[in-house]
Amino acid sequence: MSLFIKNVLLNENVIDIFIQNGTINAIGENLDFQADKIINGTNKAVIPSFVNAHTHSAMTLMRSYADDMELHDWLENKIWPFEKNITEEDVYWGTRLAIIEMIKSGTTHFNDMYWHYDGTAQAVVDSGIHAHLSSAFIDLGDSELTKKQIAEQVDLYHRKNEYEPNVTFTLGIHSLYTVTNSGVEWARDFAKDHNLKIHMHLSETKKEVDEWVKQTGMRPVDYLDSLDMLGNHLLAAHVNWVSDDEIQKLSDNGVGVIHCPTSNMKLASGVFPYKRMKDAGVRMGLATDGVASNNNVDMVDEIKMAALLQKSSSQDPTIMPAKEAFHLATKGSASLFDLNMGEIAVGKSADLLLLDLNNIHLIPNYHLIPNLVYSAHSGCIHTTVSKGEILMENGSVNDEEIIIEQFNKAANRLVKG
Amino acid sequence: MSLFIKNVLLNENVIDIFIQNGTINAIGENLDFQADKIINGTNKAVIPSFVNAHTHSAMTLMRSYADDMELHDWLENKIWPFEKNITEEDVYWGTRLAIIEMIKSGTTHFNDMYWHYDGTAQAVVDSGIHAHLSSAFIDLGDSELTKKQIAEQVDLYHRKNEYEPNVTFTLGIHSLYTVTNSGVEWARDFAKDHNLKIHMHLSETKKEVDEWVKQTGMRPVDYLDSLDMLGNHLLAAHVNWVSDDEIQKLSDNGVGVIHCPTSNMKLASGVFPYKRMKDAGVRMGLATDGVASNNNVDMVDEIKMAALLQKSSSQDPTIMPAKEAFHLATKGSASLFDLNMGEIAVGKSADLLLLDLNNIHLIPNYHLIPNLVYSAHSGCIHTTVSKGEILMENGSVNDEEIIIEQFNKAANRLVKG
Repeated sequence: MSLFIKNVLLNENVIDIFIQNGTINAIGENLDFQADKIINGTNKAVIPSFVNAHTHSAMTLMRSYADDMELHDWLENKIWPFEKNITEEDVYWGTRLAIIEMIKSGTTHFNDMYWHYDGTAQAVVDSGIHAHLSSAFIDLGDSELTKKQIAEQVDLYHRKNEYEPNVTFTLGIHSLYTVTNSGVEWARDFAKDHNLKIHMHLSETKKEVDEWVKQTGMRPVDYLDSLDMLGNHLLAAHVNWVSDDEIQKLSDNGVGVIHCPTSNMKLASGVFPYKRMKDAGVRMGLATDGVASNNNVDMVDEIKMAALLQKSSSQDPTIMPAKEAFHLATKGSASLFDLNMGEIAVGKSADLLLLDLNNIHLIPNYHLIPNLVYSAHSGCIHTTVSKGEILMENGSVNDEEIIIEQFNKAANRLVKG
Repeated sequence: MSLFIKNVLLNENVIDIFIQNGTINAIGENLDFQADKIINGTNKAVIPSFVNAHTHSAMTLMRSYADDMELHDWLENKIWPFEKNITEEDVYWGTRLAIIEMIKSGTTHFNDMYWHYDGTAQAVVDSGIHAHLSSAFIDLGDSELTKKQIAEQVDLYHRKNEYEPNVTFTLGIHSLYTVTNSGVEWARDFAKDHNLKIHMHLSETKKEVDEWVKQTGMRPVDYLDSLDMLGNHLLAAHVNWVSDDEIQKLSDNGVGVIHCPTSNMKLASGVFPYKRMKDAGVRMGLATDGVASNNNVDMVDEIKMAALLQKSSSQDPTIMPAKEAFHLATKGSASLFDLNMGEIAVGKSADLLLLDLNNIHLIPNYHLIPNLVYSAHSGCIHTTVSKGEILMENGSVNDEEIIIEQFNKAANRLVKG
């Protein structure tokens, strides 16, 4: 499969892009190539696609099911009871719907943690997108559950080739406060032995951190350090409540930190210490979190929220300029997963977007990235390409109607309880 | 002109709506009417359109021209030099472009303050939308300029019928710190004599308030009170830095307060004290501010930003639930201008939107307003109706291409300086 994009705006220049076998093969003016498919890039700009570095895709099933509530009330009385009835098939359709939303809003790679791993993984394969996926390891201090969860992770690891190459298996450790030490240590060793990444929630709320300190005498990052868990294979989501010492440890050990601004704002979990993290050289990416707390998986929304939250909370309008927010959502997130994407360059994976420069929110086009971050919504995305495959052209995604129909059947059953 | 919308979702029920002479005439199941135009409302929901209560429309000419800068640096070195070259014709095309964006994002009434009043007013008339408009009265302590500005306002007042009924003329007093006392007092008296509203910026930044206190010994609202300026004809934008006493005065006098969350976040101006205002019973509306500091005029973006900012800044997820954010943008804003709009009810002006329930961001549809506030972007708006006239159907607005072409000519000339 080859793809030839003609006369498209890249930064300030109108160029052609030739894509072969999923990779950007050539970029330049007036290129001459034969291709299976030619796209007219006139009045369009090309940018790298987004990497959504932390989500729970199937939670589309809970979109706007319960909002504006206190976190624990929300979890205990709304989210957890709803989740109890979710089947693997529900997860499949919930994830298919989320992936349509991602494709429409420019994401071609995401990092997920959820129950019914096979439902999520099959949805990724059937959608043509690519992802890092983990199951949600939670044992709540129950050693029988620990054994069961370990067995599940081992089973998924041994079956990981069923979903490759679209899916990269990772170990999902929900959080320090929901997984026993023996589970965390098992994950540390299994990850080391099999060269796996570990995906976890970390220091999301003040309450969680305060209780952890009370219980163990250590702050969560210090605790992870004492278990020898820190490293560049560790992907930690949220990380709002951290001391300067903890930030230095995250930096020194190359831990990948994932910022989820909308979810943090909506649940009032805290404000991500972006400037302190940046100054310390921490590796950072951006993410939507799940739809239950966002309420979408739209990275165009997320880049605006990230930039504005930092300016407002620090009372400094120069913090996180548009290009930094965009970088977090593209190359920043991509680098956490060692993905060869996040920029438009020869040799990079052809994960890219064409923006419609006639979209009213992008006019005038003095500066494209600030326009995208501060003005646009995801409706300005005309074409989404994932590893050289066109997943959306002119706003249209394959099988959207069928997926919505099946999704609605699942949602209607679940909401009745 | 009559309009009949069949089988549309209103709250939880599928109903028909009959509109005649710009007013909602009947709402019910299986209505029987003859109409000039019938709209099939299947898979659509009807909601009131938005009122954008404070903007500077023609600043679309400066969209993403300069971002991520300190406020005074931004104004003095970027915005003001750019504005010096703007002509009345530029303002006309800048406003036409803004109005296309408003129509696409569901706004049918806006409140504007800008130079070259006639350019803005003519754009409103030609677009079929309706607005409150004011010129920008700024004299910077120069008494010759005061006289000139007063003469301009008097002239505009006497010519106001040129643009009626689409345009309602208001007096624009830029702010306390840019207009002399004699100008402010003239506006107070002229507004009283001619039953006009006064539109001004108020207590936007801490610096501005601190300097005012230093200069006069009074906080800005107290100062306005001492001039007998407070009343329900006064429309004050921003109002971030106010004491409890000032809030009580705003409430007691029925002053209309206009919240601009995105602009406040982007410029790091401060956080609007929503809860204190609400508890005191202050009349409130919502707005985008101008595109130079937003960077769009999209009220669907604004309702999300409003709700999330309050939750995050107060660390309380229950503050400003989705319905309150939506109310601010519809009935709240509308009531500041005594508009008979902002809700779907018989006898109300037919200013309304049809949302596409097949839009991926609105699925599942457990709760429409939370979906709209937290998940949707304005691309979910299928039809925009202003006083019974269809301004957009299926995403298409009249004359969009011609307006973009003329706008780009103006923008290209201006950006070259």
